[in-house]
Amino acid sequence: MSGNLSAIQHSQVTAEIVNQLAFILGSEHVSTSPSAREHHGHDESFHKCAPPAVVVWPTRVELVSEVIKVCNEHVIPVIPFGTGTGFEGGVTAVKGGVCMDLTKMDQILDVRAEDFTVTVQPGVQRSTLNNYLHDTGLWFPVDPGADASLCGMAATSASGTNAVRYGTMRENVANLQVVLADGRIIHTSGKGRSTKKTSAGYNLTNLFVGSEGTLGVITQATLRLYGRPETTASAVCSFPDVQSAVDTTVQTLQCGIPMARIEFLDEAMIDACNKYSHLSYTVTPTLFLEFQGGEKAVNENVQAVLEIAQMNGGSDFQWAKKLEERNHLWKARHDCWYASKSLIPGSSAYSTDACVPITSLPECIIAAKEDIETAGVKGPIVGHVGDGNFHIFLITDPDDPNSEKNIRWVAERVAKRALSVGGTCTGEHGVGLGKQKLLLEEIGEEGVRLQWQLKRMLDPNYIMNPGKVLPQLP
Amino acid sequence: MSGNLSAIQHSQVTAEIVNQLAFILGSEHVSTSPSAREHHGHDESFHKCAPPAVVVWPTRVELVSEVIKVCNEHVIPVIPFGTGTGFEGGVTAVKGGVCMDLTKMDQILDVRAEDFTVTVQPGVQRSTLNNYLHDTGLWFPVDPGADASLCGMAATSASGTNAVRYGTMRENVANLQVVLADGRIIHTSGKGRSTKKTSAGYNLTNLFVGSEGTLGVITQATLRLYGRPETTASAVCSFPDVQSAVDTTVQTLQCGIPMARIEFLDEAMIDACNKYSHLSYTVTPTLFLEFQGGEKAVNENVQAVLEIAQMNGGSDFQWAKKLEERNHLWKARHDCWYASKSLIPGSSAYSTDACVPITSLPECIIAAKEDIETAGVKGPIVGHVGDGNFHIFLITDPDDPNSEKNIRWVAERVAKRALSVGGTCTGEHGVGLGKQKLLLEEIGEEGVRLQWQLKRMLDPNYIMNPGKVLPQLP
Repeated sequence: MSGNLSAIQHSQVTAEIVNQLAFILGSEHVSTSPSAREHHGHDESFHKCAPPAVVVWPTRVELVSEVIKVCNEHVIPVIPFGTGTGFEGGVTAVKGGVCMDLTKMDQILDVRAEDFTVTVQPGVQRSTLNNYLHDTGLWFPVDPGADASLCGMAATSASGTNAVRYGTMRENVANLQVVLADGRIIHTSGKGRSTKKTSAGYNLTNLFVGSEGTLGVITQATLRLYGRPETTASAVCSFPDVQSAVDTTVQTLQCGIPMARIEFLDEAMIDACNKYSHLSYTVTPTLFLEFQGGEKAVNENVQAVLEIAQMNGGSDFQWAKKLEERNHLWKARHDCWYASKSLIPGSSAYSTDACVPITSLPECIIAAKEDIETAGVKGPIVGHVGDGNFHIFLITDPDDPNSEKNIRWVAERVAKRALSVGGTCTGEHGVGLGKQKLLLEEIGEEGVRLQWQLKRMLDPNYIMNPGKVLPQLP
Repeated sequence: MSGNLSAIQHSQVTAEIVNQLAFILGSEHVSTSPSAREHHGHDESFHKCAPPAVVVWPTRVELVSEVIKVCNEHVIPVIPFGTGTGFEGGVTAVKGGVCMDLTKMDQILDVRAEDFTVTVQPGVQRSTLNNYLHDTGLWFPVDPGADASLCGMAATSASGTNAVRYGTMRENVANLQVVLADGRIIHTSGKGRSTKKTSAGYNLTNLFVGSEGTLGVITQATLRLYGRPETTASAVCSFPDVQSAVDTTVQTLQCGIPMARIEFLDEAMIDACNKYSHLSYTVTPTLFLEFQGGEKAVNENVQAVLEIAQMNGGSDFQWAKKLEERNHLWKARHDCWYASKSLIPGSSAYSTDACVPITSLPECIIAAKEDIETAGVKGPIVGHVGDGNFHIFLITDPDDPNSEKNIRWVAERVAKRALSVGGTCTGEHGVGLGKQKLLLEEIGEEGVRLQWQLKRMLDPNYIMNPGKVLPQLP
């Protein structure tokens, strides 16, 4: 079954097709310039740039539908593009075709503060939404680090540092407008609906969350909002080893203490942070913690976690209660990616992403450090440790011809080890180009076959972001 | 497309088929007795009993698969059965066939306390699991009231009183083992996997959660567990009207106060509770509240909610901090169903279920009370108000020949009003037999067509719980 679909020969984008797209969208919203094509042919990873034949900027959902109908008729790939901040090559145009840049659909449509929902067009970025919401006392907590587009975050099932408390995009999308491969415009929970929960029929919303543009183009998302907590406090705590940091996390969760963030940084990451962000943390495995709630609740939780950490050998506590101090701390955390890249001037980097049962995290991190050592590469480690999710920022060395090969070796070892302990090869970055064989190993032939069935049902001409997510079956 | 599938003529269960099932399962696990068939032909609602031709009790997933293969070959319906505590006729054998009672597969397979997961077979009930977990300090919080089977809860996407804090089954199922209509046994997240999150391919788990047995039989579920909170406090608070109770809820959530439960009971419900559970609450719209966390956090949150409630005219606070008092309070809440039925001796009852944006809740509840008045029936109202979800326990009067008709009229008005304000016709009970036309209105023809496509893909012979969930298209 997969063979049939992935054997489809896509058509070239001819001058005639470009003219047709310009007729639909206006010529100012269509470009074949090399710079536009190059810009849209890659994400933030080291996956090779594969430029689309043409880039289009639709401004309304009806135009998205029109463009897709043309592409479906001519069997031309359609690749949705948000901010290009992915890590698995999801936007690369490996089969050519039309890149659909959605940044001109950038309206925040419907803030319903008392219903805790907002509806956004696909070009709205995370920080734009949260700035817009500032005066409502609400916020959208899912935060993958990058200032990604919210519909792009839905497409990859993104999450990040706040997921331990607020969940991932899967839990925070109430409704989607999606344009299917035949041009149909659907609302996964019914048009205009936004309830906190529903049992009405099959869960179409979560079929599209995480589908990485391969089942349709997300053109609108209704998201859940949360009240901003009264008090927030952050802290940094050093540990003698990985195990004690993870033990602290497990015991904290077992006590039912509602953590807002629990981030792990290994000593290599702390060292890079110290240099890049001009900090002076002890160079040892470290947790960055965040507490939210009423003032007394925060103090009580801080005290409880402090005790748990001390029992596990934690020390060098540094508290950040003022907004400015907290911002400084979390900016350092979010700058980890840049701090890592700055270790080797002129480098690019690949952020691997694995998620494991939390008790397997110490062995997986320790073994990953051995792999990094063996490969002779640089790879600071950070982790959303409360979720068992961790990343290694693997840095290429432009002076070492084997660097990329060595990095891929580490990444594959880490992913396969995650699978061997009951984990997943990607907690939040998605499969994209890079993890298709691992997906096959993870869910097995039966699982992949079922996913191909879904793909074929929704995209019989194989035009939606072809070459992504689904591996060929043996 | 829907026409084709729903026009399929199912075969009768012949004596030969019964013999074949007895050969597979052992004759002690197959019954055609009238009492077994009658028991398995209805749930707790007033949907008419439709007995299956035969009831089977498989003891292993391989036997589930064998039975389904036989049914698929002969085009015979298969209806999964857990505890029969549903409300929308999901287990009625409206097309005849084989009822598959899963209660003999009742093992708790794999408690991983430090990974916060457990795997259960389909016959394990909620209270059994929580009793089993007692000494681990963990619990599974989703609580629909009935002591349902956990896989049945997954099948209907159940939720209940704790959902405002812990989410529904959608958020708390990490992996499912499912037997498809062709007998394939799949693991939706890959065999043996249980991570807190994943972005690996399409979300098959949530395709089956809420599918009500129409896409496959759930034979195993891996669930998320939580640390039991250090302190729990419950309270009852009376309000002058519905609006002030809902305003209190909205303001509480806007302040980011992490409520464990916020349950609304209207004055009719309080009156019935007082009588049934020998209580003496003021007969007026009321909130039952629950707070969890550290002791200081609980006290602080209690104080904050007290102030919000008082600003909205709340009074007659009664606190229950001791376990015994709390159990008494929540037993009264869980007994609402029986308290309502006791209003008319010999009655049966129908629990409607709608979920709306929370700001629409007061108008929907007030209008529902007018409908109840107009119809001349009894219908106490309870609501998981933090989620905008409410139920009316509509009581049939055996002495009134129009009673059932009047009840259906109220239920339909309530559902259609929920749809008109952007809500859903079912927040947690599912579609089953009773809400198929409403589903069409809710998600539209395009949405239903897509759901039929999914159904056809996974169940081309239309054997999995046929006649449920999906409406015929016009």
